[in-house]
Amino acid sequence: MPSPHPMIELWRGGLLESTHTGHAVICDETGAIVESWGDPGAVIFPRSSCKMIQALPLLDSGAAEAHGLTDRQVALSCASHQGAAIHTEAVTRWLADLGLSDADLRCGAHEPYDTAERNRLIKADEKPCQCHNNCSGKHAGFLTLNRHLKGDAEYVEVDHPVQQAAKLAFEEVTGETSPGFGIDGCSAPNFATSVHGLARAMARFAAATGTGDARDRAMHRLTRAMGQYPEMVAGEGRACTELMRAMEGRVAIKTGAEAVFIAIIPERKMGIALKITDGGTRGAEGAITALLARLGVLDPNHPAAKKRLDAVQKNWRGRETGILRAAPSFP
Amino acid sequence: MPSPHPMIELWRGGLLESTHTGHAVICDETGAIVESWGDPGAVIFPRSSCKMIQALPLLDSGAAEAHGLTDRQVALSCASHQGAAIHTEAVTRWLADLGLSDADLRCGAHEPYDTAERNRLIKADEKPCQCHNNCSGKHAGFLTLNRHLKGDAEYVEVDHPVQQAAKLAFEEVTGETSPGFGIDGCSAPNFATSVHGLARAMARFAAATGTGDARDRAMHRLTRAMGQYPEMVAGEGRACTELMRAMEGRVAIKTGAEAVFIAIIPERKMGIALKITDGGTRGAEGAITALLARLGVLDPNHPAAKKRLDAVQKNWRGRETGILRAAPSFP
Repeated sequence: MPSPHPMIELWRGGLLESTHTGHAVICDETGAIVESWGDPGAVIFPRSSCKMIQALPLLDSGAAEAHGLTDRQVALSCASHQGAAIHTEAVTRWLADLGLSDADLRCGAHEPYDTAERNRLIKADEKPCQCHNNCSGKHAGFLTLNRHLKGDAEYVEVDHPVQQAAKLAFEEVTGETSPGFGIDGCSAPNFATSVHGLARAMARFAAATGTGDARDRAMHRLTRAMGQYPEMVAGEGRACTELMRAMEGRVAIKTGAEAVFIAIIPERKMGIALKITDGGTRGAEGAITALLARLGVLDPNHPAAKKRLDAVQKNWRGRETGILRAAPSFP
Repeated sequence: MPSPHPMIELWRGGLLESTHTGHAVICDETGAIVESWGDPGAVIFPRSSCKMIQALPLLDSGAAEAHGLTDRQVALSCASHQGAAIHTEAVTRWLADLGLSDADLRCGAHEPYDTAERNRLIKADEKPCQCHNNCSGKHAGFLTLNRHLKGDAEYVEVDHPVQQAAKLAFEEVTGETSPGFGIDGCSAPNFATSVHGLARAMARFAAATGTGDARDRAMHRLTRAMGQYPEMVAGEGRACTELMRAMEGRVAIKTGAEAVFIAIIPERKMGIALKITDGGTRGAEGAITALLARLGVLDPNHPAAKKRLDAVQKNWRGRETGILRAAPSFP
């Protein structure tokens, strides 16, 4: 079992300060490994990086079409958004279209990451609602599928039809029987797979043509919607949004908690999955940037790339303190 | 060169999700290693974990006494505080006593970690000032020493007498020639040393009796002041404050950015230093908790300990999602 591979390093004053190690796999459309680092068989929780898989039943069941969901909503169903007004307004309207409200969500509430919305709440002495939860778009998607499946209100329980549909889709596209599940931050089950399995799933999304069966059309639409509405998938200043914009929407990427990152690259019919062993987000952002640059789909000198790799670190007075860069043997 | 040792693990749904590896040394008063994990010779930046070393010249030069500093101020000079009112008021008063103001600080401003103070600023449309910087207490100490040394205003420059005094003290107590320095978040130079060197320094603090020379008295006073005013060293809810309270002030501990943690244990005349390789704070907090429990100075069942080790993780709806615990071979 190969050890995790050194991927991203933080240097300060000419000395190595911190190191992120991890596992990464690049897969082609056949599911074969093109290149890997660390252990392709390492079992991980994809966390939010697999939201487009969790959204598959919403699309291939026909629920999305029946409810007339737009591509913007499809992108939002894959989001870990920052609770900015554009996100909460879209979720609120979506719920209203279903005849539902914030109280029907089961994701829980947390302070939004968006500074403007956070400050607005504080000034108004308002508490965040469940719409502010970074997963509320995924949950609006769950509720839409639930309406279609006529399930009960507790749609995040693992034996609920919505989650069983998500599990089936997950095992189909990863090509693996999931060894188990954990409860995610938003209370939904999150199924485990290998890094290879997650990369294989992403290669399948990448190879979808939109002209095949319902699953093929769902994968194609989800990938395109993410690339077309990058601001709905995360938000201003965030890695997913900025890097997808830098690649002009040709590649869909998605972060997950505990330092998972995936990429879907239709023009290469390839998928990437990576996990930084320690769960450090900056490591995952640096590593996906390095791999996208290696595959020639991201300009490493684009400002969005330079913010995450070969990234000069500055302190509160704007002084340069160090640099975040790829480890010598990565990629 | 030993590899970093697995120290802290995050488990979810019965599966290992993330792992923090690192280096740790327990030293006795002779500087000998009592026990170690990983590489004792690993070179690290202590970051804020060495603030009590940076404060040594303030005390052993006689500057603290000449300015009538209280033990509460001495504790604040070692702080990475959260910019709560008790911290900013103490720094503001200290600066005023020196005939100085916020503008004389060179630490830069950042939003305070304290929620009440953060919200107050937002509601009042006020920007944070340099007093809110978590290092402003250390800088008030630097300015006090600077008055004594009659240095110029740019006291964070590495060749300034204040920083040269800090460097000399650092090399003396670590017993090593520092291989270099980096610029810290607060713009002060931060000198590198080995994990062993940092643990050796902490054992010297632990062994100080308060009845010896100026250096001995300085080390003794700093250690006791930290234990006596834990709320000044960090703040409510923070690891340093809560764990020092749990140990009833008998042990001084201090965190540093990029996952460094130290402990000074007078009753055992021992010092601890550790660095989590990836820079993840939760790993450092878990690891220091484990080592303090191992040495019998912290009850592992105290709520402050259980918050950092064998720590049940809950999500936004209060559901249990996992546990943060020590790796099987640690400690």
